[in-house]
Amino acid sequence: MKVTFWNEFRHEKSHAEVQAVYPLGLHVPVLSYLHDQGFETAAASLDQPEHGLTEAVLASTDVLLWWGHMAHGEVQDAIVDRVQQRVLDGMGLIVLHSAHFSKIFRRLMGTTCNLKWREIGEKERLWVAAPGHPISQGIDNYFEVPHEEMYGEYFDIPQPDETVFISWFAGGEVFRSGVCYNRGKGRVFYFRPGHETYPTYYQPEVLRVIGNGVRWAAPRPSASFQFGHFPQPIEAVAPV
Amino acid sequence: MKVTFWNEFRHEKSHAEVQAVYPLGLHVPVLSYLHDQGFETAAASLDQPEHGLTEAVLASTDVLLWWGHMAHGEVQDAIVDRVQQRVLDGMGLIVLHSAHFSKIFRRLMGTTCNLKWREIGEKERLWVAAPGHPISQGIDNYFEVPHEEMYGEYFDIPQPDETVFISWFAGGEVFRSGVCYNRGKGRVFYFRPGHETYPTYYQPEVLRVIGNGVRWAAPRPSASFQFGHFPQPIEAVAPV
Amino acid sequence: MKVTFWNEFRHEKSHAEVQAVYPLGLHVPVLSYLHDQGFETAAASLDQPEHGLTEAVLASTDVLLWWGHMAHGEVQDAIVDRVQQRVLDGMGLIVLHSAHFSKIFRRLMGTTCNLKWREIGEKERLWVAAPGHPISQGIDNYFEVPHEEMYGEYFDIPQPDETVFISWFAGGEVFRSGVCYNRGKGRVFYFRPGHETYPTYYQPEVLRVIGNGVRWAAPRPSASFQFGHFPQPIEAVAPV
Amino acid sequence: MKVTFWNEFRHEKSHAEVQAVYPLGLHVPVLSYLHDQGFETAAASLDQPEHGLTEAVLASTDVLLWWGHMAHGEVQDAIVDRVQQRVLDGMGLIVLHSAHFSKIFRRLMGTTCNLKWREIGEKERLWVAAPGHPISQGIDNYFEVPHEEMYGEYFDIPQPDETVFISWFAGGEVFRSGVCYNRGKGRVFYFRPGHETYPTYYQPEVLRVIGNGVRWAAPRPSASFQFGHFPQPIEAVAPV
Repeated sequence: MKVTFWNEFRHEKSHAEVQAVYPLGLHVPVLSYLHDQGFETAAASLDQPEHGLTEAVLASTDVLLWWGHMAHGEVQDAIVDRVQQRVLDGMGLIVLHSAHFSKIFRRLMGTTCNLKWREIGEKERLWVAAPGHPISQGIDNYFEVPHEEMYGEYFDIPQPDETVFISWFAGGEVFRSGVCYNRGKGRVFYFRPGHETYPTYYQPEVLRVIGNGVRWAAPRPSASFQFGHFPQPIEAVAPV
Repeated sequence: MKVTFWNEFRHEKSHAEVQAVYPLGLHVPVLSYLHDQGFETAAASLDQPEHGLTEAVLASTDVLLWWGHMAHGEVQDAIVDRVQQRVLDGMGLIVLHSAHFSKIFRRLMGTTCNLKWREIGEKERLWVAAPGHPISQGIDNYFEVPHEEMYGEYFDIPQPDETVFISWFAGGEVFRSGVCYNRGKGRVFYFRPGHETYPTYYQPEVLRVIGNGVRWAAPRPSASFQFGHFPQPIEAVAPV
Repeated sequence: MKVTFWNEFRHEKSHAEVQAVYPLGLHVPVLSYLHDQGFETAAASLDQPEHGLTEAVLASTDVLLWWGHMAHGEVQDAIVDRVQQRVLDGMGLIVLHSAHFSKIFRRLMGTTCNLKWREIGEKERLWVAAPGHPISQGIDNYFEVPHEEMYGEYFDIPQPDETVFISWFAGGEVFRSGVCYNRGKGRVFYFRPGHETYPTYYQPEVLRVIGNGVRWAAPRPSASFQFGHFPQPIEAVAPV
Repeated sequence: MKVTFWNEFRHEKSHAEVQAVYPLGLHVPVLSYLHDQGFETAAASLDQPEHGLTEAVLASTDVLLWWGHMAHGEVQDAIVDRVQQRVLDGMGLIVLHSAHFSKIFRRLMGTTCNLKWREIGEKERLWVAAPGHPISQGIDNYFEVPHEEMYGEYFDIPQPDETVFISWFAGGEVFRSGVCYNRGKGRVFYFRPGHETYPTYYQPEVLRVIGNGVRWAAPRPSASFQFGHFPQPIEAVAPV
C-alpha cells in the first residue's frame, strides 16, 4: 500500500523557527514512521510541477496526506479537481491541521471549514470519543500534546459521519479534533494537531493516530455500482 | 418570508412537449402554490443578468428553490460561489429533481451526485421514512406520482443528515428521494420528483412537500459564533 | 402546551446542602421559568403513586423533563415502559444531568450511558457546536456554569443525531453536553448541567437552553404511517 | 474467530413447510457457509438451558447471529441483559429477518422496531446504497431474492449509523434492509431477508452479505476508556 504526503513545504524553507524543528520538512517524520509500519511512502509538494500530484502519482497512491498553511490559494483548481475525483473513486485522504482551509478539504466538505485559533503554545488534550473506532485504537483514554496552536469551536464542517477525538485546550476551548467522512467510495479523516513550530509530528501518539487513519482510509474492495442511462426497466412495466 | 424559484427556463422555450405542460415555466405552479400559502414569491432564471441572482436578490431571499437540467454548465462559477455563501450564512435551499447535477448542489455536497436514470414515464411511489419530520407532515404513508422519470441508486451523495422519503419505481429501482443536510447555518433539502415533461408540479402532495420543505429550510434565529484570531486565552494559562 | 417536570425529589428532603439551594425542589425554578414562557406546567415525583406518571398525566403531557440521581432503581419498570411508549408516540423528553443513568434514558439509548465524574465544583464552559440548531438559539458562542460537577468522556451513548453543546471543564475533561435523538415519533434531548448542590437551575442561560429544548421536543403534526399485516399488494404482482 | 448462531428453532420442529426447506434448522446452511469461510462456528437455541447462551458461550463468542419469530416473548429477560452487556463490551451482533422484533434488538434500539409485512412470496431486490461499505463488498449493484416475505416502511428504528441496502418489493414497498449501528464497543447489523418458508439462507449473495457482516461486526482492538469516580482533576484548578 502506498502513502503519499503532500506537504506545502514553504515554512520549512523560509522560517528559521520551523527549520529548526523540521529541517527536512514536516512530512519526513510522518513518512519515516509510516515506512517503518510497512507502507510504501512518497512525498509531493506545492512547488513541483503539477504540485507533484500527476495523474500517475495519484493513480498509484492509496492514501494521500495533506498539510498546507500559507499558500492554499496557490494550489491550482485543476489539481484540486483531480484529487477530489481520486478520493471519490476510493483513495483515502488524511487532512492535517491547517489544511482545514485547503481547497481540497473545503471542496469535499462544501462548507467554509472556518474556526477560531490562538497561538500561545498551550496544552492540548485529545479525548477519545469513539473507543471502538479503528482510528483511536491503542490510545489510552486521551493523549496530550504539550504545546500546540489552539483551534476552537465553532468548526464549520458538515456533521461528521464519526467523531473520534474531542480536544480540550488549557486556554479554555474545545474542538472536534478527529472527524471522519465518507465521500463517494473514498474516506476522509481530518486530524487537528500539527502546527509547524512544534515537534508534534515526532510524538508517538500522534504518529499512531495517523497510522491508524491511513489503515482506516485505505481503499477496499467494494460493491460495484452504475451511473447513467438505463433505458430498459428491470421489471416489465405496463405501458404508460 | 420570501421564496425565490431559480428555474433554468430553457426547456419551456424550446420543447413543445414541455411548453404544453408548463406554458409559463415549471416554476409557476410552484410559486403560485407558495404564494397561496402566504409566502412572498419571486422567480429568477439562467438567461437574466447574473442569472437573476444579484447580491440584492439573494440578500432578500429566505429560501431558494433550484431547478436546472440542460444547461448546468452555463451557470457562472461566481454566481455559484455567491449562492453557496448565502446558504452557509443561513438561506434555505431546495434542490429539485435534475438539479442533483447542478453546480450548487455538487458544491455543497462535495460528491458527484451521480445516479441512474430512465425515462419511460413509469410510476413512482414515495414512502415516508421519517414520519416525525416536518417535511413529511400531512403525507399519508406514501404518495404516488403516476408518471415520472426514474432515478435509481446508487445516488452518490454524502450520508444525509435525515432521509425523509424513499422512492419505489415500477421498473424495479429504489431511490432516496427526500434528503436533508445542514451546511453552515443553512439547510438544504433535495427532493427528487419533477421531470419537465410531466405535470408533477401541479400535484397536491408534491406541492405540499415543497411547502413543508420551504418552512423547514427557512432561516431561524441562531446562536452567535466567531471565527478567526483570538490571541488571548479565556483561562489564565501558564507561560510556555 | 403542557410541560411536566419529573423530579426524583429525594435530595431536597434529606440533604441540608441541597435544601439550602432548592428549598422547594430543583424543579421549581425550571417550572417557574417555563410558566413565564407561556407553557402550562406540572410536577411529578418518585414518591407519588405511580411516581406521579399516570396514564392521564402522560397523555396530557407534551414534553416531559426528567431529573433523578440517588434512586433510579426505585422507578418501576412498568412506568418506564409507559413513558417509553409515550415518547415513541410523540411526547418530547428532556433528560437532565444525572438522569443519564435513569432507566428511561438507558432504555431509549440501548447503551450503558456511563461516564466519568468528579465533584469539586469546577468551572464548566459549554461551547455551541451547532449554531443553527433551535436549542442553541440565543446563546453567545458559549456560556459558563461557574461551579458544577464534572462529567467526562467517554460517554457511552449512541452517536447523537445532533450534537449541540460540547463542554470544557477546568479540571481537564470534555463532554458532549447537549445531544439530540429521534426515537419513534418522539424527540429526546439530553442536557448535562444541573448538579443538586449548585444553583445551576437558576442560571438564565441554562433556563434558556431548557426552554429551547422544550420547544424543539414538542410534538408536532406528522405523516401518518401503518404497522402490521397488509395482505394485499399495492401493485398487481404475478403469482409466485 | 468464533460465530454463534442463535436460532429460535421452533418452526423447523413444528411446521412441515419449514422442515422441508430447512430439515436441520435454518442456522445450518449459514453456519456451514461460515465454517467454509474459516470461522469457528456454534449453534444455540431457545429450548436449551439458558437458551444456550451461558456466560461461557457468550464469553467465547465473537459474533452472535440471532433469528427468532414465534417465541420472542419466551426469551428470558436475564439472558437478554447478558447478551446486551456482551454487545456493549464488544461482541458483534447480526440480527436476521423477523428478529427485528426480538427483545435483544428492541433493547439495543430503544424503539418498537415495528414495520409492515405481507407474505405472498413476492420478489425482493436489495439495492446497494453504500458501495464502499465492507458489508456490500462483492455485490453487483443489487441482488434479488426470488420469493420472500415483504417488510415495508415505516420501519421504526433509530436513524442508522449506516444504511447499506434498500429493498424494492414487487408488491410496491421499500425497506431499509441492511442497517448498521455502533452500541458501546459493539457493532450491530440488521439484515432483512430470511423468512422460514423460503430457501433464502441457501442463496450465495445472502450468505456473502452475512459473511461480510460477521467480519465487519467482529470485535477489534480498541482505545481504552474509563468510567466512574475520578476525584482528582488532571489540571490544577483553583479552589471553589
